[in-house]
Amino acid sequence: MKNQKLYMQIYNYYKGLIEEGKLTEGTKLPSIRRCSVELGVSKTTVEQGYMCLCDDGYILPKSQSGYYVSKRGNSPKKTEKKIQNENTKSNIVFDFSSTGVDAESFNMDIWRRYLKSALRQNERLLFYGDPQGEYDLRCEIAKYARETRNCVCSEENIVIGAGVQTLLNILCPLVKNKKSVCFDDLSYRQGTAIFNDYGFKINKDREKSSIIYVSPSYSTRWGDVMSVKERFDLTEFARQNNKLIIEDDYGSEFRYFNRPTPSLQGLNGGENIVYLGTFSKLLLPSIRISFMILPQGLTEKYKQKKEVYNQTVSKADQIALCSYIRDGHLKSQIKKSRKIYVQKSKILTDLLVENFGKNIKILKTNSPLYVKCRFNIKMSAKDFCERAEKAGILIIPANEENAFPEIAFSVATVGQEGFEQAVKILKKVTECCK
Amino acid sequence: MKNQKLYMQIYNYYKGLIEEGKLTEGTKLPSIRRCSVELGVSKTTVEQGYMCLCDDGYILPKSQSGYYVSKRGNSPKKTEKKIQNENTKSNIVFDFSSTGVDAESFNMDIWRRYLKSALRQNERLLFYGDPQGEYDLRCEIAKYARETRNCVCSEENIVIGAGVQTLLNILCPLVKNKKSVCFDDLSYRQGTAIFNDYGFKINKDREKSSIIYVSPSYSTRWGDVMSVKERFDLTEFARQNNKLIIEDDYGSEFRYFNRPTPSLQGLNGGENIVYLGTFSKLLLPSIRISFMILPQGLTEKYKQKKEVYNQTVSKADQIALCSYIRDGHLKSQIKKSRKIYVQKSKILTDLLVENFGKNIKILKTNSPLYVKCRFNIKMSAKDFCERAEKAGILIIPANEENAFPEIAFSVATVGQEGFEQAVKILKKVTECCK
Repeated sequence: MKNQKLYMQIYNYYKGLIEEGKLTEGTKLPSIRRCSVELGVSKTTVEQGYMCLCDDGYILPKSQSGYYVSKRGNSPKKTEKKIQNENTKSNIVFDFSSTGVDAESFNMDIWRRYLKSALRQNERLLFYGDPQGEYDLRCEIAKYARETRNCVCSEENIVIGAGVQTLLNILCPLVKNKKSVCFDDLSYRQGTAIFNDYGFKINKDREKSSIIYVSPSYSTRWGDVMSVKERFDLTEFARQNNKLIIEDDYGSEFRYFNRPTPSLQGLNGGENIVYLGTFSKLLLPSIRISFMILPQGLTEKYKQKKEVYNQTVSKADQIALCSYIRDGHLKSQIKKSRKIYVQKSKILTDLLVENFGKNIKILKTNSPLYVKCRFNIKMSAKDFCERAEKAGILIIPANEENAFPEIAFSVATVGQEGFEQAVKILKKVTECCK
Repeated sequence: MKNQKLYMQIYNYYKGLIEEGKLTEGTKLPSIRRCSVELGVSKTTVEQGYMCLCDDGYILPKSQSGYYVSKRGNSPKKTEKKIQNENTKSNIVFDFSSTGVDAESFNMDIWRRYLKSALRQNERLLFYGDPQGEYDLRCEIAKYARETRNCVCSEENIVIGAGVQTLLNILCPLVKNKKSVCFDDLSYRQGTAIFNDYGFKINKDREKSSIIYVSPSYSTRWGDVMSVKERFDLTEFARQNNKLIIEDDYGSEFRYFNRPTPSLQGLNGGENIVYLGTFSKLLLPSIRISFMILPQGLTEKYKQKKEVYNQTVSKADQIALCSYIRDGHLKSQIKKSRKIYVQKSKILTDLLVENFGKNIKILKTNSPLYVKCRFNIKMSAKDFCERAEKAGILIIPANEENAFPEIAFSVATVGQEGFEQAVKILKKVTECCK
């Protein structure tokens, strides 16, 4: 983020004043507008700084009035806790572990226009919508899934929800009789937790499970892709053994190649497979719209129950997304993001090679969102990441078992103008370890 | 709805042409704009008509092109099914059973302004939000719940979600050890279904249940309120027997009196009670924002798990609602809606008395959203409602056991200019039964 340092400066400035007791409980902070004028920064930047102060309990917003120093902000106990937090949070300058999106990639103006126009459909907004999701949006999504992911489906098979978890909350009760589910990646707690909530047994053994949950386009966090052969084998295995596959197609859009590997759902003809897709990664993480494609049998089961589940996505968002897809913006948005990520990955790769020379080996990834590499340093990946974090750089290990640290850098949210500084800091960290 | 007849005319016109084969498969319908100009009706009206045609499979939307007559629209099988549907759906002119809101009650322009301004906070929208809900919105909601419902809470106890069901999906796993839940109103399937999904035993017996789910402000669909004495008794019973109360405070805002009965949560001091509130009824049903207030013990339990549950409400909606409440619009919105519903109830009551004279008795309700009455006609409430429905009037029985039909009219969505016609139609229905 371009302004990350700016808003952290605002945060640190007021935090200091409050902790030193120079601003006491109940003192009003300058209004966002005034602060923005005085410091010559945008109101958004000030607001972000204030938000962080709120989050950490230093100040409190008061209705129609402004921001005030809180009681807790001055308490010494809180201060101690703060110092601990600081090492793990406040110092982070470059976050290469983020699941956010690039600030430049999304044209907010277009989305705003569509949402504005959706909000003009007063009459349609007065009623609860179809629990399954708006009909016209389901048509567009079905078309999109058929065209880009080879899925076999019609609007009838589509269920819309505010995030993948909301959809799993509908799906789990429908497949309750299955009792056990296999996750290749048990660290995906957002998924395992939901199945656990419904009493499913969770394991890593496909043979022993009646449901197989896979992310074939992202079988690891940094975008390793399941090959077409593996995909065929998996669907065949599931068909022969009467297992249900849940295909979480997260991240399938961001590949180096224009044509991503076909979805399992498409390969298999839609039988025995529930397909999950999300728009949070394509639009904005803060827009919560996902969908699932149910096979025909589960579609019938769902229909009998659908009236009891209220729709979770606001109708205006659904109407806006429908026109947005229909007018071709989703496709151009994906193209644009892919281009940005490809470019950023290349710049970061070049900088790493330039600075580390023989001490780095760039590893292949399928996703332009990640740069994966191995450092020629005797140290565990975990230690490596911890040291980097202390220096303000958040990175994640790509492989914890290797003797040399393997690291995956997400290029999603760090602005490319920060790459050079980040790589230099990282170099210092590694130098003092040799 | 004012335009209900207009868009149904559009629906019926094209439906006729398609069924008679005058418009064949693949024929393009006029664009919404052209149709709106030619018929001299609003684009929204045309769109609603087209939507219904889509919903019933007569036409299909095509990307960037328009609406086309579908294959199914021409099939004779579909036509047969249609004729059946017609009696139950298409004829409805006045819907007194609706859970929507009055078209005049909500100032969409203000909401649009707030949402627009929220969408300008680009940087904040780039990231996934706090799974619990945005901090500043939680502060405003806590304040609102304290001020208007006497709730005992801080922002720490608030969890935001896209509808009450989404919140129950978080709550149920937290209280899994309790195993059984009592619903006074077992017909509230949106609630019972979720508990059922998690394997809870559901019954009507408070003694035998470890959770008691109540809607004290709406203990019946038409707004009967639990008295303060009953509230005290219930909280005392729960405290002594170590039961958890889930207080679904749905509809508490629309009372005849300015000060609604205090919430159970407030009476009891927040212990052993989970409070559920929603903004769908206050703003628009299509805006999906609800919240729960957890008691301290469950708050701690939730905190340990919260990172696995993604937030389900789009951040822009949260930011908009926060400023909307902070600037006092929610309070004036409630005041305005209440005034509209009180007025509409009065007009409908007067019309009913005027037309039915001795043959009607108006019954007391606590909610201006409903007019409840008993008709002096020997007939079951169910039969009465069915006959009314055939004449285009959707009403719901208030009491199925009484020898004379007791009916609850929701004045929410029918425009008051339609009341007179509706009452006259209803009179005809009753006259042919005597």
